[in-house]
Amino acid sequence: MAKSSTGSITLPKGFRAAGTTCGIKASGKPDMAVILADQPCAAAAVFTKNRLPGAPVIAGKRHLRNGCAQAIVINSGIANDATGQEGVDNALSTCKLVTQELAGVGISIQHRDVVPSSTGVIGPQLPMDKIARGVSQLVKKLARGPKADADAARGIMTTDLTPKSANASLKLGDKTVRLGGIAKGSGMIAPNMATMLVFLTTDAAISPAMLKLALREATAVSFNRISVDQHTSPSDTVAVLASGLAGNRVVTRPGKALNLFTEKLTLLCNNLAYQIVKDGEGATRVFHVAVTGARTEREADRVAKAVVDSPLVKTAVHGSDPNWGRIVTAAGYSGARINPQTLSLTIGRGRPESVCVFDKGVPRSLSAAQERRLEAAMKQKDVYFTLDLGRGEAGVNWLGCDLSREYIRINADYTT
Amino acid sequence: MAKSSTGSITLPKGFRAAGTTCGIKASGKPDMAVILADQPCAAAAVFTKNRLPGAPVIAGKRHLRNGCAQAIVINSGIANDATGQEGVDNALSTCKLVTQELAGVGISIQHRDVVPSSTGVIGPQLPMDKIARGVSQLVKKLARGPKADADAARGIMTTDLTPKSANASLKLGDKTVRLGGIAKGSGMIAPNMATMLVFLTTDAAISPAMLKLALREATAVSFNRISVDQHTSPSDTVAVLASGLAGNRVVTRPGKALNLFTEKLTLLCNNLAYQIVKDGEGATRVFHVAVTGARTEREADRVAKAVVDSPLVKTAVHGSDPNWGRIVTAAGYSGARINPQTLSLTIGRGRPESVCVFDKGVPRSLSAAQERRLEAAMKQKDVYFTLDLGRGEAGVNWLGCDLSREYIRINADYTT
Repeated sequence: MAKSSTGSITLPKGFRAAGTTCGIKASGKPDMAVILADQPCAAAAVFTKNRLPGAPVIAGKRHLRNGCAQAIVINSGIANDATGQEGVDNALSTCKLVTQELAGVGISIQHRDVVPSSTGVIGPQLPMDKIARGVSQLVKKLARGPKADADAARGIMTTDLTPKSANASLKLGDKTVRLGGIAKGSGMIAPNMATMLVFLTTDAAISPAMLKLALREATAVSFNRISVDQHTSPSDTVAVLASGLAGNRVVTRPGKALNLFTEKLTLLCNNLAYQIVKDGEGATRVFHVAVTGARTEREADRVAKAVVDSPLVKTAVHGSDPNWGRIVTAAGYSGARINPQTLSLTIGRGRPESVCVFDKGVPRSLSAAQERRLEAAMKQKDVYFTLDLGRGEAGVNWLGCDLSREYIRINADYTT
Repeated sequence: MAKSSTGSITLPKGFRAAGTTCGIKASGKPDMAVILADQPCAAAAVFTKNRLPGAPVIAGKRHLRNGCAQAIVINSGIANDATGQEGVDNALSTCKLVTQELAGVGISIQHRDVVPSSTGVIGPQLPMDKIARGVSQLVKKLARGPKADADAARGIMTTDLTPKSANASLKLGDKTVRLGGIAKGSGMIAPNMATMLVFLTTDAAISPAMLKLALREATAVSFNRISVDQHTSPSDTVAVLASGLAGNRVVTRPGKALNLFTEKLTLLCNNLAYQIVKDGEGATRVFHVAVTGARTEREADRVAKAVVDSPLVKTAVHGSDPNWGRIVTAAGYSGARINPQTLSLTIGRGRPESVCVFDKGVPRSLSAAQERRLEAAMKQKDVYFTLDLGRGEAGVNWLGCDLSREYIRINADYTT
């Protein structure tokens, strides 16, 4: 699977994309994007579990109820969250603006088939004059038929340092099916889900119900197992459109084809999830937490989440400090029924580089060679922790990032 | 209630205290302390809920099973946690050393009546030669009969910048009952409980069972409602000794006397809890989160905990940024059943200084005067947030502190 800046969401057949600058951001950086399909698509989405969902999430859920969509319109800079009924009206108006502008260039789509999405500061209302200007610019670009995936990826960024995109492909029968995706997310990243927006496209022929099933499964093990700062955003959205133009036999029920598709979609989501954590606000390192030997996945998830969210673990990773006491005690307060006598911790990416530092409840005394290996493992850009609970067979993998002075700078100064 | 550096744990009748430097800390700072009662006391303690309790917690629970204790011996620098059976043996040996040294100066106490406690780095074994030297020094000081409360408070510090102590008194019948306490805690502070040690003394005459009841109640609303970094330490301990020398009628059952005593003990604990948060690692401000209008205290606790632990709220407080979106969305992901339409947020300490920024789901547009008040409220050393859930009658108060670059410096560089 390639990380591509030249092709992602328009690699699958039947999609166009554009990005632009409408002036929401004071910085003058790109702040709008659109993805348009040639025809109505099977569509599915997973939204934030925050009890204060943003207005676009409320509107988007409504528009996706029939499992069908043709366009996604996104702005960055203002999240349109905690904005009451006025905010919902603005999100719906944005969809109508897209329909109107497209009609002006001879493209007819239902405003119900537009999914709105916003990210940025919470509280302010959308400046609808700027949004109108942005939609007009976007549609002009689309009409020229471009595949400006990179522009779209830039248009959805907030505190992201890099645009995020990926693509993948697989064979279903004798047909090649393509998948692409763009993502943003850097702060307010926490499971269920990250503060992030992810927009995926595919030319697979698949029913809305099966698409939803595949998306849920892929999201559960990717975007729901990452955390930058445990603050679950009210804007989180992962949406997918499937154009059906690959010509494969339509996937309408569980089975081999759905499994193959879900597997590839999961890889794509894992790729984007990794990019999001790597670009976590102020992050200099990614750490991989594998929890094994749990009774249930749920138990393993609790332990992994406690470790990736612990500020003490995050600062230890930042300082390349093999302060393993912080990791095992995070497991200890996770709420999982840890048994100290069966708990072990290994640091480093597999043998022979890895070092077991805590073995069934007892600290290992390390040789000089092991100390050197441990030191080297902690200095990598990717740091690996494996916690074996010694209680069962279940396991999970999570991603976290370190906590740096830069995170403080970004977040003590952001907004107002 | 006075914060006193000259008298705390020895203000109640029947107690002595000392602190010393035995050399555990590379810095050469004080690292041991002892509290000794003239006679065996009624005793109670509340310990960490971390499933990897430190060795002193395991030993301390054993020694307190009979509700009786006469001394507490504490070291800082090494936590004696995650140290296996050897660690437990070392904790028990430390108690025996206290008994032996005291016998040498003609004071006879049971080693079962000594409660051990440790705080510091997780993993290493206690250096028992240094511990032995420290116990010997402490007992020499005690034999001279000093009331070195300030030395004891310093001997239990780790990353604390200031020693923490407080005292209080009340009347039970015609007798004056005194209470005193010292505390440490700066990092690894999270509810259930903070990473902290708190040692309380009183000359109240009270049964062990009633003492335990009072301590549990006081701890529940003080130390269990503060968070510096959500990392629940395996060493957390709040212990109290009651000498009975005030001469009041012994409190042996619930009733007015127990209520009066519990109320004063709670004030003392709140005072120490505030000192701990104020000295949170890198903290420059304390923020007070009041959650009102909840269906249950449990619901209110979930909301308050999500707010005080959110890195985005903590950095906003650090930057004096009234970024209220971060506060209401933290409530939104807390797990409590928030209804956006009944949720309100007020910033500032009561009228007329306070400003309602979010009113039943809708952002308030603020006048210039309100904006100024809001700005002023965010610049205080103590910042106040009141979240009204609009669902019921229950409410709670929590304390948190801001997240600064200094927290990163302290924790990326601490240990190994």
